[in-house]
Amino acid sequence: MPVNLQAPSPDSLLPVSGILLGTTEANIKKPNRKDLLVMQLNPQSTVAGVFTQNRFCAAPVIVAREHLASGKGVRALVVNTGNANAGTGEQGLAAARATCAEVARLLDCGAEQVLPFSTGVIMEALPLERIVAGLPACAANLSEDHWHDAAHAIMTTDIVAKAVSRQIELDGVTVTITGIAKGSGMIHPNMATMLGYIATDAAVAQPLLQQMVKQAADASFNCITVDGDTSTNDALMLIATGASSAPVIADAKSAAYARLQAAVTGVATLLAQAIVRDGEGATKFITVKVEGGTGVDECKQIAYAVARSPLVKTAFFASDPNLGRILAAIGYAGIALDVQQLKLYLDDVLVAEEGGRAASYREEDGQRVMQQGDITVRVVLQRGAAQATVWTCDFSYDYVKINASYRS
Amino acid sequence: MPVNLQAPSPDSLLPVSGILLGTTEANIKKPNRKDLLVMQLNPQSTVAGVFTQNRFCAAPVIVAREHLASGKGVRALVVNTGNANAGTGEQGLAAARATCAEVARLLDCGAEQVLPFSTGVIMEALPLERIVAGLPACAANLSEDHWHDAAHAIMTTDIVAKAVSRQIELDGVTVTITGIAKGSGMIHPNMATMLGYIATDAAVAQPLLQQMVKQAADASFNCITVDGDTSTNDALMLIATGASSAPVIADAKSAAYARLQAAVTGVATLLAQAIVRDGEGATKFITVKVEGGTGVDECKQIAYAVARSPLVKTAFFASDPNLGRILAAIGYAGIALDVQQLKLYLDDVLVAEEGGRAASYREEDGQRVMQQGDITVRVVLQRGAAQATVWTCDFSYDYVKINASYRS
Repeated sequence: MPVNLQAPSPDSLLPVSGILLGTTEANIKKPNRKDLLVMQLNPQSTVAGVFTQNRFCAAPVIVAREHLASGKGVRALVVNTGNANAGTGEQGLAAARATCAEVARLLDCGAEQVLPFSTGVIMEALPLERIVAGLPACAANLSEDHWHDAAHAIMTTDIVAKAVSRQIELDGVTVTITGIAKGSGMIHPNMATMLGYIATDAAVAQPLLQQMVKQAADASFNCITVDGDTSTNDALMLIATGASSAPVIADAKSAAYARLQAAVTGVATLLAQAIVRDGEGATKFITVKVEGGTGVDECKQIAYAVARSPLVKTAFFASDPNLGRILAAIGYAGIALDVQQLKLYLDDVLVAEEGGRAASYREEDGQRVMQQGDITVRVVLQRGAAQATVWTCDFSYDYVKINASYRS
Repeated sequence: MPVNLQAPSPDSLLPVSGILLGTTEANIKKPNRKDLLVMQLNPQSTVAGVFTQNRFCAAPVIVAREHLASGKGVRALVVNTGNANAGTGEQGLAAARATCAEVARLLDCGAEQVLPFSTGVIMEALPLERIVAGLPACAANLSEDHWHDAAHAIMTTDIVAKAVSRQIELDGVTVTITGIAKGSGMIHPNMATMLGYIATDAAVAQPLLQQMVKQAADASFNCITVDGDTSTNDALMLIATGASSAPVIADAKSAAYARLQAAVTGVATLLAQAIVRDGEGATKFITVKVEGGTGVDECKQIAYAVARSPLVKTAFFASDPNLGRILAAIGYAGIALDVQQLKLYLDDVLVAEEGGRAASYREEDGQRVMQQGDITVRVVLQRGAAQATVWTCDFSYDYVKINASYRS
């Protein structure tokens, strides 16, 4: 079950002026579930995104990058779950392009103005005919109020939908930011393995929007790991419809840019953490914070070594303060460390110092923290001022169960 | 259950002249099991070893390195299971030194002539008094014929003991090579997470023996992974007692060196593979072979990305040819690849080419191979002549079970 994560109520999700959402049940992999989403944007929208670094990136990622780079503007996004259209060669590219063409026909725009996204099983042919058959229902269903349905239509093994809205003031105008995302396996950055869509009715010049989405991703989706597997399909898209009356943001040094950046990063962080809280089989949400390093890179490398270790993650699953496994993971992170100098905390409990167990440490203190749903592992290197945080979850029977039966 | 792995019969293990082994039940962690081993070497023995690269290396690793570097010669090795004496600070170092001193007293040699080794739970104090109390029984029990007992005395979560003997001719003299090893969690190289001891009655000059053990480790223990966790305690020791009448090997270019090197590497490879076959929760033994690369490093990096992927490993556990996960792992290995050019085979079955599923691939062929206990994943990069092989196992419910309950 998801760790300290509520499903979003439909009422909590605010429409974003300038973007319409339509979903349908296209029977792509399973019947009786929403599995196809179309988002239609007003013409003045700007769109930016970051995509998976996986060399086997999926056909829709290739096509979405191409279309975004064409500079013709984006009028629609189309997302299917149930099939990733990855590892599908030329046929997969053709299917992604055909999907865009059909959306363009229905919404009266150019095919290059449509960005395609897919998530689900890899290396099986995209059932194009079912997608094409489902698209008219999406187009007929377009509404500003369908964020809740949209969050459901992009889920794969997610147990709860991920969505959040925020409002801020920009130059006296209230603007809205609403985002949705899906996990929940193959989660490891560059990009984190997921799809995320964040929209605002603020107006932002495209190059600044690209900078904003990169910064937001680096502080959120690129700080999570469930299983260390970087997916073929990851994408985080940021849409600014400009439909509010707030002035266009065209200066990265402006107060409005900073305020919107902070709000977008906040939404992205909540969505990214929601993905971990609903990580496959997760029973614990673990924050790994490494501080006192000489640089962010070494802090992140150590944090990921801890966050990825199957031995650490199974110990958390067992609520067993088998904390030596954390020391071992720090030790093999590939950073030259003086282990005598390092301190390890579990929440507020000092666990290890001077190369061994802290004199003050009592097993019952460790056990108390291990019972919690949310736990912070803090590693203090005591040799600099840099820090990094990574979020992860534990490793349970259910992770194996879910991934051993994913296709069936 | 171990995958296609037989427990060694006592008769199959050949004594190595010049080395005596004694074991006892010292109740270090659990009663009624052999958990303490002393090996006594004749005075002309040479000894070489490779140790974990983990920065949090255990106290016995630090002491064994020191004693080996002292140049005073090695007369004994002492190994306990049940406690790793890692993450134990100054107290742990003192306990490792005290263990050596006690062995030295019993066997009438210098404390620096004793190498200590520990395996088991991390960050708990070594129960020195139980080890000291058990050592006289080991000393009283010393015999050339106790390899089988020794293999059992170093086990942790291993289900079967790992041991193998070989004989070769060197300059007309029969020499014996016998090795033992233990796994079976925290298995990932630099060094692979394990203890291994290989002894021969050949005579080898110390610097050559160091070269030989490094080469053997690189071709065997450094090619395996169970869970990607590099332990704090790994060590592979090679002992040459020189008790046979074969001439001393003092030339790395000699035929005798080459023959002994091949035999030692063969023994090391069987032991390393046995560790994977008995990997925690393993139900499949998987050989990942990457060939046609521009260098060994890129081949190894891709092989490890596949071999470490929890998604790939759970798919093997399910006997599910969800082969897109292998493509995804290749894609995130961090190597700039033209994925169009790559071919993926499951044993003899061509699975993927030209960026997608091979036209000839049939699901039933993939399923047939996935049913096997031993499976080879072969990735052909088609851009060079280099290759690398990594051995791993699948990821099962039992891996989680074993590691969630290890301390209880």
